[in-house]
Parts: sequence; C-alpha cells; structure tokens
Amino acid sequence: QHPQPTMSTKATIRKERYESRVKENKYDIEAWTWLINEAQQTGDLEVIRDMYERFLNVFPTSPKHWLAYLELELKYSNFNEVEALFTRCLKTVLSVDLWKFYLGYIRRINSGESGSSVTPEARAIIEKAYEYVLSNVGIDKDAGPIWADYIYFLKSAETSNTWEEQRKMDSMRRAYQKAVTIPLNNVEHLWKEYDQWENNLNRLTAKKFLGEKSSAYMTARTALREMRLFTDNINTNVVSLPPKWTANELAQLDLWKNYIQWEKSDPLQLEDDTAVMDRVAYTYQQAFLVLRLYPEIWYSFASYYLELNKPEKSLSILKQGIEIMPTSLLLNFSYAELCESRRQLDDARQAYDQLVTTLDKNIEDLKATAKQQIDKLHEEAEAERASLNLSDDIDGEVREQLRSREKHVKKEQDAIEKKLNDQVDVIARGGSLVWINYMRFARRTDGIKSARALFSRARKAANCTYHVYVSDALMEYHNSKDAVIAGKVFSLGQKSFADNPDFVCEYLDFLIEMNDDNNTRALFERTLATMPAEKAGPIWLKFLDYENKYGDLASIQSVEKRRIEAMATPSVNTMESFLKRQSYLDVRNIEDHELG
Amino acid sequence: QHPQPTMSTKATIRKERYESRVKENKYDIEAWTWLINEAQQTGDLEVIRDMYERFLNVFPTSPKHWLAYLELELKYSNFNEVEALFTRCLKTVLSVDLWKFYLGYIRRINSGESGSSVTPEARAIIEKAYEYVLSNVGIDKDAGPIWADYIYFLKSAETSNTWEEQRKMDSMRRAYQKAVTIPLNNVEHLWKEYDQWENNLNRLTAKKFLGEKSSAYMTARTALREMRLFTDNINTNVVSLPPKWTANELAQLDLWKNYIQWEKSDPLQLEDDTAVMDRVAYTYQQAFLVLRLYPEIWYSFASYYLELNKPEKSLSILKQGIEIMPTSLLLNFSYAELCESRRQLDDARQAYDQLVTTLDKNIEDLKATAKQQIDKLHEEAEAERASLNLSDDIDGEVREQLRSREKHVKKEQDAIEKKLNDQVDVIARGGSLVWINYMRFARRTDGIKSARALFSRARKAANCTYHVYVSDALMEYHNSKDAVIAGKVFSLGQKSFADNPDFVCEYLDFLIEMNDDNNTRALFERTLATMPAEKAGPIWLKFLDYENKYGDLASIQSVEKRRIEAMATPSVNTMESFLKRQSYLDVRNIEDHELG
Repeated sequence: QHPQPTMSTKATIRKERYESRVKENKYDIEAWTWLINEAQQTGDLEVIRDMYERFLNVFPTSPKHWLAYLELELKYSNFNEVEALFTRCLKTVLSVDLWKFYLGYIRRINSGESGSSVTPEARAIIEKAYEYVLSNVGIDKDAGPIWADYIYFLKSAETSNTWEEQRKMDSMRRAYQKAVTIPLNNVEHLWKEYDQWENNLNRLTAKKFLGEKSSAYMTARTALREMRLFTDNINTNVVSLPPKWTANELAQLDLWKNYIQWEKSDPLQLEDDTAVMDRVAYTYQQAFLVLRLYPEIWYSFASYYLELNKPEKSLSILKQGIEIMPTSLLLNFSYAELCESRRQLDDARQAYDQLVTTLDKNIEDLKATAKQQIDKLHEEAEAERASLNLSDDIDGEVREQLRSREKHVKKEQDAIEKKLNDQVDVIARGGSLVWINYMRFARRTDGIKSARALFSRARKAANCTYHVYVSDALMEYHNSKDAVIAGKVFSLGQKSFADNPDFVCEYLDFLIEMNDDNNTRALFERTLATMPAEKAGPIWLKFLDYENKYGDLASIQSVEKRRIEAMATPSVNTMESFLKRQSYLDVRNIEDHELG
Repeated sequence: QHPQPTMSTKATIRKERYESRVKENKYDIEAWTWLINEAQQTGDLEVIRDMYERFLNVFPTSPKHWLAYLELELKYSNFNEVEALFTRCLKTVLSVDLWKFYLGYIRRINSGESGSSVTPEARAIIEKAYEYVLSNVGIDKDAGPIWADYIYFLKSAETSNTWEEQRKMDSMRRAYQKAVTIPLNNVEHLWKEYDQWENNLNRLTAKKFLGEKSSAYMTARTALREMRLFTDNINTNVVSLPPKWTANELAQLDLWKNYIQWEKSDPLQLEDDTAVMDRVAYTYQQAFLVLRLYPEIWYSFASYYLELNKPEKSLSILKQGIEIMPTSLLLNFSYAELCESRRQLDDARQAYDQLVTTLDKNIEDLKATAKQQIDKLHEEAEAERASLNLSDDIDGEVREQLRSREKHVKKEQDAIEKKLNDQVDVIARGGSLVWINYMRFARRTDGIKSARALFSRARKAANCTYHVYVSDALMEYHNSKDAVIAGKVFSLGQKSFADNPDFVCEYLDFLIEMNDDNNTRALFERTLATMPAEKAGPIWLKFLDYENKYGDLASIQSVEKRRIEAMATPSVNTMESFLKRQSYLDVRNIEDHELG
C-alpha cells in the first residue's frame, strides 16, 4: 500500500500546478488568485509580499491589489514600505479608492494621539494632501465624498480673528465653487449645501456667488446624467487582461470609446482647451486601468495629443504603450512614423529593429516551448514503456497497447506542432509587415540602397514571408524603374515560394504586366506541373483569364480542358469555365440575368 | 346625368385594357387567359382562331392550348385545319396528351361508319400511326396506356392462317418486349400481362422469352421509382415564361437539371449510346415545354451534344435557342465560339452583329416606350390643366393644386426615367461584353487591325460602356505590345468617362504599371479636383496606396489629410487611413489581432 501523501505534499503539488499555469500564461488570473490566497494563508509577510510583487509586476494597474498590499504593510505598521508603495502606484493608478486610502493614511499619521487635537503643522500637511489628491483625481465622478470631506475639513478649521475667518470662508467658497461645476456623484447635494452656506453667510452676496456658478452647475448635473449612460455599464472591477475579443470585451471597449469620445466633445462647455484635455487624459487613464493591453486605446490617446499639436506627449504615450506591448504593430508603426516625420530617424530605426528582434525572439520562444512539450511527451511515453518491464517476447495485447500509445503520442505531437505553426505564421506575417515598412522607411529617408540592404537582412531572417519579396520587387520596379532587378527579386522569391499560389500569382501578374509572354507561359506551365491541384486553383483561373484575353481560341479551350481535368471537382466544369471567361471586370450579365 | 355605358362598351373597354397589357408584356399570362375566354364567349370561329394563333405565337409549346385549338377545329369537322395544326405542333411539342389526341384522330377518321369493321387498309394506317406515335413519345413514362392500347390493337387483328397468326404473335411479342424495358407508369402491369400471354402460348418458350427481358424489366421498374422522385415534383401544367428567378422557379429548374443529369447517367443500363442520347434528348425536349425561355437548358443541351462529338447538333440547338432568345449572351457566345472553332467565321461574325443590332434596338425600343409614357403623362396633365378652365387670375388654392400636380408629374417622369436608365444600363453592359468578345474574336481570327476597326464601331455605338475602352487598351498593350496606343485609348476613354471612378481606376492602374509618374499624379489630381466626394472614394484610396508604397512620408500624410477632409464621413478618419496603409496584400495583422 502506498503511503498517504501528507497535506503539505498535496498542497505543494497543487501549488506547483498553479505556478506552472502562471508560468505558461502570465495572465492566468484564476491561478494568480489561488496563489495569492495560498500565500496569505501562510501568514508569512515575506511570502505574501513576494507574491504581491510578482502579481503587480504583471498587473501594475490593479487598484484592488495595490490596496490589499498597502493594507498588509500598514497592518504591520511598516510606514516606510507603505510610503514606498504609494510612490510606486499613486501617479500611475488613478483610482479614487487608492487615493482615498492615501488620504486616510496621511490623516492617520498626522492626527495626534487619540483624541488630541491636530497641530497647525499637521493641519497644513493634511490640507496639502487634500489639494494634492483633488488635483489628481478630483474630477472623477466618484471623488464627490473627498470634496465633501475636504470642505468639512476646511470648515473645521479654528479661527481666531476676522482675517482668518475671512480666509477660511474664501477657501471654502473656492472649494465649493470648484466642486459644483464637476459632474460629481453628489453634485446636487454639494450644490444644496453650498446654496445654504452662502445664504447663511449673506443673502445678498449669495445671490451673486450662486448666480456666477449656477449655469456651470446645471451643465455638470446634466453631464453627470449623460456620463452615467457609459459608466453605469462599464465594469472597472477587473484586472487588465489581453483581449480575447469576446462579445463582452468588445461591448466594454465600445463603451469606453464612446465615453472618451463624449469627453472629447466638451460636454461641460469648459471653453478651456487645457481643462478639456485634462478631463480627456483622465478618462484615458481610467480606461488604462482595465484596457491597458488594448493597443488602440494607446493609439487613440497618442492621436488625440497629435491632433492638439502636442507631438512630444504623443510620442511619450506611444513609448509607454510600446513598453507594455513591445510587439504591437499599431503602436510601433505609429511611433516610427511620428519619429520619421520629426526627423528622429534613429528612434524610428530603433523601433523597427526592436520589433524585428522581439518578433524573432517570440518565434524562438514559441518553438522552444513546443520543443519542451514534445520532449516531455516522449519522455513520459518512454517512462511508461520502461515501466511495462518488457521482455523480448511480448504478447499481442501488450503490443497493441504500445501501438495505440504511440499513435496517441504522435497525435499530441501533431497538435502541438499545428498550434506552433499557426502561431508562428501570424508572427511571421506581422514580421514581414515590419520589414516592408522598414524598407519603405529606409527608401524614403536614406535611398534605395539602404532599403536593399534591409531586404538582404530580411531574406536571411528565418520567418520572412513572400510579401517581403513582392514588396521589394515592386519597389525596385516603381521606384528604381528597374524591371530587371524586380524580375530578379521575383525569381529569387520563386526559389522559396514556388509552392505558394499567392506568391506565384503576384509573380505572374508582374510578368504579364511586363508583357514577358515567354516567361509568363513558362511560369504557368512550371507551376501547374508541380503544384498540387488543391492549391493550384487560382493559378488555373489566371491562366484561363490570360489565354482568354490575349491568346488564341485553341489555347483557351486547351487551358479550359486541362483546368477541368486537373481540378477534378464537380464545381469546376465547362459551363463554370465558360462563364468565368464570358465576364469582364464587373460585368457579369450572364450570371446576373440568364442563370438560375 | 351621364348615359349608362352599354354592356358591350364596358366589355370593349375591358378588352382594350387586357390587349394593352399583352402589348406591353407579351408574357402576361393572366391577360392572355382573359382574352382567350373572351374570344371563346363570342363563339366566332375566326375570332377564336385568331386568338389561338396569337397566343401560340408567344407560347408555341403549350400542349393545353394546342389541344384546345385542335378540339375547336375538330368540333367544326375542319379536318384540313386539324391536320395542318398537327403538322405544326406534333414534332415540336412532345406531349403525350397531344400525341394521344392525334392517335384518337387517326383512329376516328379511319374507323368505318359506326359499328362497321375496319378495312385492312385502315388497320394498316392505324398500325403505322401507333408506330409513329410510339417512336416519338413511346419512352415517356406516361405513354404506358398507348403501349397497352397498341398491344390490344395488335391482339384484335383477325387472322386467317397460321402464318398470319405467327406474324401477329411476333408483333405482339415485339411490342411487349419493347414496352416492359421502358420505365412506363404501368410497366408492372404490362409485365404481368406479358408473362401471362407468353405462358398461355407456350410454357417452355415463355421461360426463355421472359428470361431474356426480366433483368431489363427490373431495371426499368427501379428506374421508374427513381424517376418519380423528380417528375412527381415537376410542374408541367404551366406555360413557358421568362424566369423571374423566384424560389419556386429555381426549385423547378433544379429538379429539371437533376432529372436530366439522372438520365445522362444511363439509369436503364442501356449500354447503347444512341438509345441513351435519345432518352436524354427527349428529357431536354420535355424540359423545353416549360423551360423554353431558360438559356441554360439550351446551353446544357448543346454542350451535351458537343461532349458526344456532335457539333452540328450542338450548333442547331444553339441556333434554335437564339431564335427564341436572340439577346441571350450565353447562347450567342457559345454559338459564336463553336462556329469559330469550326472556322465558320462568317456565322460567328453574324452572331456578334445580330447581337449588337438587337441589343441596340432593344435600347431604342425601351427609350421609345419611355418617351411615349412621358408624353402621355404630359398630355394628361395638359388636358387636366385645360379642363380647369383657368382664367388669368387664378386663386392661391388652384395655384397650389397645379403646383402639387406638376410635382406629381415630375415624380412620375423621374420614376420612368430611372427605370429606363436601369434597364438601358444592363443592356449597355451586356452590349459592351459583346463588343469585347467580338474584338477578341476579330483579333484571333483576323488580326489586330480588324479588332481596331470593331473598336471604332463600338466607340460610335450609343451605349458603349467604359469596359470596351479598357479591354481595347489592354489588348493593344498586351497583344500589340504598344503602350503608346494603349495610352491613347485610355485617354480617349477619359473624354467620356472622366466622372466614372471605375474607369479612372483602370486608367490609373495602367499609368502606374507603366511607371508614368507624372501622368499618374496628374490624373489623380485632375480627377480629385472634379469628381464629387461620394464617387471619389476609390480614387482617394488608390492615391493613398500609391503614395504609401512609392512616395515620401510628407506626400503620404498630405494625401491622408486631404482624403479625410474630402470624404468628410466619420468612417474615414486618421486611424482608418493608417490601417489601410499598414497592411500589405492579405496581411492585416493590426486589424486581425490588435483591434476590437
């Protein structure tokens, strides 16, 4: 009988499982949640701290987890650690809850021993803290209670002379007048309070002061109602995950986009570009708390600054986005183009080089992971085989078992390889787009020779697709006006992509354009002789079209017949061929009007 | 008080209405049915005869109406007329009912006076008639009763000696043996009868004779069951109308196609090509009774003969189809191509010329009809105006009435013109396809000069679309290898089609291919300066693509900006432009993977 594993062994195994899950997919939030809980169970500060650090490294904008981390340190009265954490998170995580916590902390360490009144110095610090917090998150609709607290705090100031009293009134009025023009959740309540307060002070001046602000207050109240149409349905209680484009994600994304758009329209009628920009930027920052891994939000933010003629800000946003998503083509291409238009050519070049390197590395990593998985598969199979303790004369049943096991391993290996190839293909195509853009950039900024040098680099890259060849060939033809070099590039591509119908079609288009009949026909024949029928469909169609437009009837009919024989599917027949030929551009009268 | 119109006046008005309906649309079967009924009400033979003639001219394959017409003449014992009608319809309308009627007629005029026995000469005539009928429609599944009658007729022959008796037995056996191998509706009954008959004659020879046919009978019985899957759902009780592509029409067409396909597969395992061909041809003929105005059935029948290496038959079928549908591109192009491959070049030329002329005439007719309608509209409006008896000082209400009436007239006129333009456009595009094919034909058979002459003719044709220019230009470039002439043809086209974005795009593609940067940019600028924004979308996109691939960054961004300004729709914005540029061929990684 096997010994019962101890609880701790069981827990260790389970922990390892979750650890390997987050290792494989760092965004596996379920596994993270389990690991954090497990760390908390240990009660070991170092262990929990380490877990939070690891988690926040992946999810640096999760207010909930920063708060939990802060609360932990505060529980141990580690004030230095708390303050260090505030330094790390406050400015990047514009969460009202987090900033409220900060305020609470400042009030706590600055209030005297229990019951004793606050010293003037401490009051000054707290007041500064309020101002600091409100200048950062004061326009948040959820910042209403902070405003209310602030005003209450101001009210509670003790005064000893008229001058001080006057000063207190002024600062309270300033606070009220600011707050009632912001679409705060409690703006109506604040307005009523303010109204009462002014009227209690002086009925005459009240009329004047309230009159000055009432229209802005009304606008803010209306804006709050409009804003809620977006915010009520936006879910902020999630961590930033890479989009999987689920219906829910798309709906949330749309809400955010509309919300941002609404802020851009200046619903508060601020007539102050900076103020509008601040509100819009705040909204983008809010969006980043949950949509941090959506390149389009970063792009949109950068474009917004560019429209306002603030290219530095735009560049900085793009740079931040690229740091978070180094392989985003949207962000990198935008960044490189902006650098190019500002003649920061080295920066642009660096962006392209970084992309090329990172994408290549990603492919290498994928391949390495796949290899590990396959190796493990074989090891396990080998171990199982060994455990069977096979002698020389194994019986049929065991042999059958082995065969079925081998088949299973083969199938799993195929699945891993298929997945790898699909993933590599996407990245390789992206990488080719980078090379194409990089080559265009080089041509524009440094001439064709520089572009050619990049093409040589691209060709040597392991994961370059045919698109790079086509793009380079056509650049040679259209920019250098050199059909010979263009032809050479195509025939270079032919060496690697002769079995790719898309490439061959591009090559054929080029040869046809060049009126190079001999090579056109030769390429048709060579391709059709070797390419399997299931891939050759487009080549046959092009051949048919070519002969139909420029050949003689015998050639047309011969290609027609050969195509039908080669394709050997019921949908490819004489009538289908005939109809394909009897149309021109968008004129398909026979199909449109004569056939059922 | 107006006088009450007499019944006859009322009837005349109604009749005129139906007459004008069939004049406007000769396939208005409802109107025809009313007119035939009305003619029959008159009881006037000449009137009814005239109506049938007119109807059968439009619907020459309607067995029901031929039968009605025949019955009418027979009622008046107009035997000459009856026989003349048989001559006109029998061979072209392979309807069992019609041929049965013919048989009945032959039997009636050849049977002696009531009760008296038939003379040997008359018997011979009737027997010949049976043979004639069965050789024409004997393979029809509904011809079973004719076969049964025929055998009964043979049985009823009186014999006076063994030799005659033997001869009678032989012909009966021949008939039985033929009939039981055809999938006739009553084939099982015929087989039982035949079995009994042979066994009554001689049990020994019966086994031999029945054994010879039993397998073919079984096949026929199975085939009948299969055939019913098609025929049970085919509706033959309709006249041939031009397809409107309703769901029901498409379903019927599909049934027919499958039925014909099934016959081609030789379900009776005849192993006799001619016999299979006869059955297939018979099925096509049956299809024509209701699908006479479906070009694809004619095309399919012609192709069938061509596959069997019977081009003359194929040509003859196509010719028949063209006679019925002179503007069918499917039939005319097939015919012309077949003529060309048989070097009957004059016939091909004639087909193209016929098409060009007929299509032009169709357009003229449409225009004339539209003009008539518009003229009538204005006349009516004028008459109404006159009836208002307007003096110089008309009051506001009347003026308002007049204005509203004028607006109404304008609206109706617009509707007529819109419909006309749509119809003309379809025909003009078809006509251009004819010119394009005609030019290719001329180039292949007579050289480029001949094709050029046709292009000159096409250009002068009123309804030539831009496609003809593009086709001719590219023919000049690819066949004569003359980019200069090609360019001239394009710039000739530009004179007529400068406001057509599709044409301009083709022209631009050509200039770009020719690396003619100056003219490319000039054409872009000229077009974008004059073409309205709602049409210029594709031109802007092409310009953007062109600059993006081969221009400098400043030009790219300038075109991008200009495009957004010019298009002025929310969907055309910086991001959309950027994305359009940041893709290459089928690689759209940003849209596919980075955006929601």
